[in-house]
Amino acid sequence: MRIDVPLRHAHRLLNHGPTTLVTTRHGPRRNVMAAAWVMPLDFEPPRFAAVVAAGTFTRELLEAAGECALQAPTTAQVGLTYAVGSNSGRDGDKFERFGIATEAGAKVAAPLVTGCACWLECRVLPEPALQSAHDLFVLECVAAWADDELWAAGEWRFPAAGRRTIHHSKGGVFFATGERIAAR
Amino acid sequence: MRIDVPLRHAHRLLNHGPTTLVTTRHGPRRNVMAAAWVMPLDFEPPRFAAVVAAGTFTRELLEAAGECALQAPTTAQVGLTYAVGSNSGRDGDKFERFGIATEAGAKVAAPLVTGCACWLECRVLPEPALQSAHDLFVLECVAAWADDELWAAGEWRFPAAGRRTIHHSKGGVFFATGERIAAR
Repeated sequence: MRIDVPLRHAHRLLNHGPTTLVTTRHGPRRNVMAAAWVMPLDFEPPRFAAVVAAGTFTRELLEAAGECALQAPTTAQVGLTYAVGSNSGRDGDKFERFGIATEAGAKVAAPLVTGCACWLECRVLPEPALQSAHDLFVLECVAAWADDELWAAGEWRFPAAGRRTIHHSKGGVFFATGERIAAR
Repeated sequence: MRIDVPLRHAHRLLNHGPTTLVTTRHGPRRNVMAAAWVMPLDFEPPRFAAVVAAGTFTRELLEAAGECALQAPTTAQVGLTYAVGSNSGRDGDKFERFGIATEAGAKVAAPLVTGCACWLECRVLPEPALQSAHDLFVLECVAAWADDELWAAGEWRFPAAGRRTIHHSKGGVFFATGERIAAR
């Protein structure tokens, strides 16, 4: 079940460096792409940095709409993640093409991909120089959600058997998030 | 054994979002801190984005020296990572205090922490506005290394039993990099 994550904990959703899906919508046009180069940038308000390459359909929709959703796909979505990361939305709607179910968010128009481990609804903080020089976007999270099978008491608690978040290694190869280790 | 990683593959060392250690040296002063908010920013030349909070000793040395090394610690270094992430180098040299062995890099003066999974020697590309507004540094990697027990043929190949990189969840809690999953 998708549960609300307090914004003060939103950075913890991506602290561990999982690969994300970036969804966007502008008017009737929508898209989803894979992005490994996404990380927290600040705690409160929760901000994230995301690299979105120039020339991509997501970049066009992100700049037009000024908002997006980030979500962390799971080990059950490796094929989906690779598919949306290696095809362009300019060649047709990827949600229809790959049979990707979505649900509505609370604060932004971008669709949320069903079955992910977490979702972060974000608004772009315009930084034209940064976007132009480094393809880097600063995103402020305005609503955050997690799957309560995987997240409890303000942290990831993946069951021993079951879905986990994933980390991109190189084209088409990922690592599951592994064993939990407490230093203290 | 520490082996050379071609710069065109350097981004793959941190693609999967592991926690890093940032080492710095300026004259006789040196430091090491933990940083989870580090990610690739570009392929060639390989560039990385790293958040280094204002007021930290690492920030002072990084700005003074204009260079640093990033390294990914392993499951054998969870205690070390937590220790250097929760103590300040202003209170005494952390390498001595925590018994951290180092070796020399090739291109920068910052020490390399022995036993890590990979090492990236980096120079700061000055971006004063970005550093000031978001504590974000753009680093260009000028030399890269990996432990050949963990890295082969241009990618992470962690043995089933043995050390792995780690990912920060929340204060003192990490995840090991888990199972390899190929989408194709």
